[in-house]
Amino acid sequence: MAHDQLSVKMQLDAWYFQVKAFDTLLGTLSDKDLMAEIAPGRNRGIYLLGHLACVHDLMGPILMFGEVMFPDLKRPFLDEADKAVSELPPLYQLREQWKIVNNSLATHFAQLTPEEWFTRHNSVSEEDFMREPHRNKLNLLISRTAHLAYHRGQMALLPRKG
Amino acid sequence: MAHDQLSVKMQLDAWYFQVKAFDTLLGTLSDKDLMAEIAPGRNRGIYLLGHLACVHDLMGPILMFGEVMFPDLKRPFLDEADKAVSELPPLYQLREQWKIVNNSLATHFAQLTPEEWFTRHNSVSEEDFMREPHRNKLNLLISRTAHLAYHRGQMALLPRKG
Repeated sequence: MAHDQLSVKMQLDAWYFQVKAFDTLLGTLSDKDLMAEIAPGRNRGIYLLGHLACVHDLMGPILMFGEVMFPDLKRPFLDEADKAVSELPPLYQLREQWKIVNNSLATHFAQLTPEEWFTRHNSVSEEDFMREPHRNKLNLLISRTAHLAYHRGQMALLPRKG
Repeated sequence: MAHDQLSVKMQLDAWYFQVKAFDTLLGTLSDKDLMAEIAPGRNRGIYLLGHLACVHDLMGPILMFGEVMFPDLKRPFLDEADKAVSELPPLYQLREQWKIVNNSLATHFAQLTPEEWFTRHNSVSEEDFMREPHRNKLNLLISRTAHLAYHRGQMALLPRKG
């Protein structure tokens, strides 16, 4: 297997490992659990879930797959901090949106060739990309994998309310 | 820049981003802070620090750079859970060991060619590696970067005791 193909495979494996581990964790958490803070005074589980669904949804336009699917997530889960917005979407909807955005990404990922993973993403101009070829689609996947791991570590601390 | 070289650069950037962010966070935490639990009933800051120092130290032999430097970290911070071992090394020593292991890795990383990153690591046999060429040194770096991000997300929750 060529090295660019291997690199893409390894990074996709790392991404799917994190997504699957988060899914498994989420499956053990009740809606009541998700309304609790992960630590005293910190973000609630619902905020982390909405935040990750929103950030993954935003990967679509950055990777040139298409428009965001759930623009309403941005204000409560990205622009604003937890508890700043009083009316949040219900948890069954957030759980569903989390699945939909990841499934959509998976569908698009499966269609990209290794070569395409090394082309620029939408947050960098063609001009800048000439000088900074590491600002490619694979690099976005690398940073979002770490972002997911970071918040998964926090979600794992959520106390179980039953 | 060739794609294998780019892949290695991107992954090393991701690694150093996490190490630096953890260093910055650690610099804001007092020894007293590190003796607290990150959330009620969960691991203490000292355990996360010792755990990460130990896991990074163990990357040396897996990547064939040499022996572990601090074998005494393994029992209290990897084999055992937090609070199972009553006598832990002092925090000034753990802070120092954390720096030493990362600096040692950086020195070795700088000497690896992109080609070498795609060679097998020590936890896979030559025979298995023939069939599973993704089990290479770069892949270990990918998984340890996510591991660090996971625990950094937790360490960020540590309450400040002053």
